Amino acid sequence: MFVVLNLKAYPCDPVEIATVAGEVAEETGVRIAVAPQTADIESVASTGVETWAQHVSGVGHGSHTGSTLAAAIARAGASGALLNHSERRLRLADIDAGVRAAKRAGLGTIVCANNPRQVAAASRLAPAAVAVEPPELIGTGTPVSKADPDVVTESVRAAAEGVPVLCGAGISTGADVAAAADLGAEGVLLASGVAKADDPRAALEALVEPL
Amino acid sequence: MFVVLNLKAYPCDPVEIATVAGEVAEETGVRIAVAPQTADIESVASTGVETWAQHVSGVGHGSHTGSTLAAAIARAGASGALLNHSERRLRLADIDAGVRAAKRAGLGTIVCANNPRQVAAASRLAPAAVAVEPPELIGTGTPVSKADPDVVTESVRAAAEGVPVLCGAGISTGADVAAAADLGAEGVLLASGVAKADDPRAALEALVEPL
Amino acid sequence: MFVVLNLKAYPCDPVEIATVAGEVAEETGVRIAVAPQTADIESVASTGVETWAQHVSGVGHGSHTGSTLAAAIARAGASGALLNHSERRLRLADIDAGVRAAKRAGLGTIVCANNPRQVAAASRLAPAAVAVEPPELIGTGTPVSKADPDVVTESVRAAAEGVPVLCGAGISTGADVAAAADLGAEGVLLASGVAKADDPRAALEALVEPL
Amino acid sequence: MFVVLNLKAYPCDPVEIATVAGEVAEETGVRIAVAPQTADIESVASTGVETWAQHVSGVGHGSHTGSTLAAAIARAGASGALLNHSERRLRLADIDAGVRAAKRAGLGTIVCANNPRQVAAASRLAPAAVAVEPPELIGTGTPVSKADPDVVTESVRAAAEGVPVLCGAGISTGADVAAAADLGAEGVLLASGVAKADDPRAALEALVEPL
Repeated sequence: MFVVLNLKAYPCDPVEIATVAGEVAEETGVRIAVAPQTADIESVASTGVETWAQHVSGVGHGSHTGSTLAAAIARAGASGALLNHSERRLRLADIDAGVRAAKRAGLGTIVCANNPRQVAAASRLAPAAVAVEPPELIGTGTPVSKADPDVVTESVRAAAEGVPVLCGAGISTGADVAAAADLGAEGVLLASGVAKADDPRAALEALVEPL
Repeated sequence: MFVVLNLKAYPCDPVEIATVAGEVAEETGVRIAVAPQTADIESVASTGVETWAQHVSGVGHGSHTGSTLAAAIARAGASGALLNHSERRLRLADIDAGVRAAKRAGLGTIVCANNPRQVAAASRLAPAAVAVEPPELIGTGTPVSKADPDVVTESVRAAAEGVPVLCGAGISTGADVAAAADLGAEGVLLASGVAKADDPRAALEALVEPL
Repeated sequence: MFVVLNLKAYPCDPVEIATVAGEVAEETGVRIAVAPQTADIESVASTGVETWAQHVSGVGHGSHTGSTLAAAIARAGASGALLNHSERRLRLADIDAGVRAAKRAGLGTIVCANNPRQVAAASRLAPAAVAVEPPELIGTGTPVSKADPDVVTESVRAAAEGVPVLCGAGISTGADVAAAADLGAEGVLLASGVAKADDPRAALEALVEPL
Repeated sequence: MFVVLNLKAYPCDPVEIATVAGEVAEETGVRIAVAPQTADIESVASTGVETWAQHVSGVGHGSHTGSTLAAAIARAGASGALLNHSERRLRLADIDAGVRAAKRAGLGTIVCANNPRQVAAASRLAPAAVAVEPPELIGTGTPVSKADPDVVTESVRAAAEGVPVLCGAGISTGADVAAAADLGAEGVLLASGVAKADDPRAALEALVEPL
């Protein structure tokens, strides 16, 4: 299982979380990545943890003020980027361009989708992975694996061959992660469950414990 | 072959073009639809020609000022809507919602895409059809069937089972339409070739003549 | 006072509401306009009521699939267009272009804004009018003139010279309209209060009664 | 004069340019800031040069994946942010929110605008400054101060009291900068003239020499 910890725009200390995540990854052998604000990629990556951007633009070098250039996040230490999170939905053509731009810079991509239909679509753009997150469950504490397990199994079935499916929204316990794995997910997107926890280390250890 | 005549925001008389298109459709038995500005749907549909909208929103009834409600374009006489034209690219989630909203209102949808990858993606949203139009060829007079025939054949191969592929961009002669059909396309998107022609009837008749 | 009745994407009969609005306008001498879905402009305008679009694009004639061309809504019978409603927020450059495109087509524009600062900004683009609508009050039934009267008076003070200010959000009674006028507003934007009323005529008559 | 060096998504070494810019600023006493990609803010700021972001989101802390949080760019070392560059045009409401979010984080903002009307509008949102850049001149090498000097003088006249006006587009020589100052501009936005120069130091020294 691949555990991606999305720090969104939370008021947490990204370096502290990253340090904890890196240590838990090392201790447990579970692959854990942290996705901080773009401005924090460099300091998060310097902790040694696998670092992902929360977004990447489809443009290459050029006159693109305010873009998130794949080459720039790669240089800062990112090894991949989320795309099309439900809090940053993108045009189909821009997801396609973003996956391409990321590949040229040696970055992976996880394209988020709201439902199995969108998983089927997004996975045809050949990203490293897709993630299904029903928007209505994000931040609720009710895991998709419990609220709507069919969303996960249908997404796994709908995805293009060879494209792994992660799931997200409401995942906060080790049991949620284990349930996601049972449904066929090869990873999880986490956010508030760890980033807002009083004790992020304990929260993260509990999450990966069943793996 | 399904011939869709996109009037964009051209300075043409939409009712005149619609009348011609309806007559040519009747004379030749070729299915021809006209896609006018939303404000012109009612008068275009009243000519009896098959009428498509150039866009439809994914929303249902409610507080959505400035949207293009599926129920409203259906009431005005549309039988379908284009979605995600390269001049009006949409977010993946909004294409998905638009296809759904259109279906609820009894409307078909043709989702446009820039390349075979996007065709593969768009067709998984289960629209009535997809259309592949390389943006760099739009308005050039160089047909995709000649400039880049592989785009058409790969799109036909990439599309989900049962979803027909139209092609567009640069199609202006009957030979272009015939070539598109030979490559596996089940329709064409036309624009300037007819809408800006001195004699739209002659242009349209020449286009459908090989069919 | 100018009363603009925004029908949004409500499940109402736009022609019925338009007929009522036209009759109330005639009986009372109050200027009342109806803003229907773009596809309904033609049939609404044919009732004789003053008709406004809910949106207009900044583009002129050309390759702009899915746009709302000023010339097309003018031809369908609109005499103006709302711009930048909080349900269809626009880029600053597109509001500017939309006001210009509307003027070239002989259309007025009412640019919506969320607060007095945005009123100050929007009014500098020289629209026919601006409208201030605090987003948090839209659809609540609590009128801005009561919940936050300073928003109206500050907007009137902030607007560029010669640009009248309308107010909206939560207006549903004649007393609300009168209060708006007392605060310096020269019109009101109405929506659910009339469009969703069991008896739209009674609702509209009650609204304009104090004028 | 305030000289802002926008590195866009150019294939330059941002730290090298920043180092040069910081040295030229120190030697000449001219205020010079560098605006790199968001991922490069931290390393650019660590050179000691005044650092600006190319964009900032209007959101505060919370669930905003893929945003450019003001607090995050401030922590990385930025002292301000461009907003609404013609390569990243924003909604009016988002410019307003961006200026506010930046202020709360102790950041200045320069809101870009295409013409004097938009300068009048943007300056009413109370940013630290506005910048006028006719889009058709960006990257041309023809300075706005020569191609269309009225744009600068009208922008200075149109801006709200107390809001300085910068100008940009096509500025590449010291004479261009001096001409901009003569027209009333209190700063310039530079991009390719320095970032793409073979000798950035020589290019920058020549630019600020007349000041």
